[in-house]
Amino acid sequence: MKKRKEIERKWVLAAPPPLDDKPFDEIRQGYLFSGAAELRVRRTGNHCFITVKREGTKAARDEWENEIPEWAFDAIWPETKGRRLRKRRYSWREGRHKLELDIYEGKLEGLIVLETEFRSTKSRDRFVLPDWAAGAIEVTEDPRFRNESLAQHGLRGLRRRLQKREKEPRPEVGVVTE
Amino acid sequence: MKKRKEIERKWVLAAPPPLDDKPFDEIRQGYLFSGAAELRVRRTGNHCFITVKREGTKAARDEWENEIPEWAFDAIWPETKGRRLRKRRYSWREGRHKLELDIYEGKLEGLIVLETEFRSTKSRDRFVLPDWAAGAIEVTEDPRFRNESLAQHGLRGLRRRLQKREKEPRPEVGVVTE
Repeated sequence: MKKRKEIERKWVLAAPPPLDDKPFDEIRQGYLFSGAAELRVRRTGNHCFITVKREGTKAARDEWENEIPEWAFDAIWPETKGRRLRKRRYSWREGRHKLELDIYEGKLEGLIVLETEFRSTKSRDRFVLPDWAAGAIEVTEDPRFRNESLAQHGLRGLRRRLQKREKEPRPEVGVVTE
Repeated sequence: MKKRKEIERKWVLAAPPPLDDKPFDEIRQGYLFSGAAELRVRRTGNHCFITVKREGTKAARDEWENEIPEWAFDAIWPETKGRRLRKRRYSWREGRHKLELDIYEGKLEGLIVLETEFRSTKSRDRFVLPDWAAGAIEVTEDPRFRNESLAQHGLRGLRRRLQKREKEPRPEVGVVTE
């Protein structure tokens, strides 16, 4: 059992960094419901989890997660139909930060998202992206890039709109506001 | 985390035994979904739980349960609307068995159910009800008396039909077959 506040930032990348033979996890996840709160099941390799999240303050959410047996995942999975996604997750440390790179598959193919968590808002605000992520567009505050929204609504032209945005002068803080 | 097979028997009682000042728990539970599998949240006193069950062989089911923080219960509860129930649960040992007596409230008021679990099917088959439960009608195999069914469909005249049945000669095994 775990309970914590998430403080994170998230960017959409134009292309992945060289991943060579970095290890990754195949992730499948589906939502029972989502909105102000969400209930999710996830399979990562041979491990399955159930997670409850709840909106908290800006960019911070309550989260509880626990491993569940595979039969329980299989029992819940059919109830998530229409609210699912698949991705490959690469995780590694770079400097003081653990980076997570999600390469989406299936209906979300082509979407590449970089995410990292912080222990404090101070550490969050100071963070500078690695050079290889040049041109990344921050989507931390954009609800359309939340996994539960991507699972339910898909991309709906989101990438095209982002690419168009990238050619225009961008605000100093890379948040997509539209 | 717990995973086990449930082997249990269940009876509807005409009246509760003398409960004097036996302790009880106020239970509220609601279902995200139910059927061949179910996902439930329950609040018992100050403790909240999430439970996954799956149909197994006759009178035995897979079950996984874990305590969740109160905020997570509160986050999930709204999603169980229309599939909820309330009851007082009295638990005590009588001989070698732990008995659980559920006195339902709200829309299920008047329903009194006695339940006990067994370690083996042998022990289950040998079990004899206490004298004070004379006239009890076994509903172990009756899906209408499952909590998830009661939560969703209510009593729908079940008690009346059971009382009528009680006046007729009953089969040797007290299963309600109709």
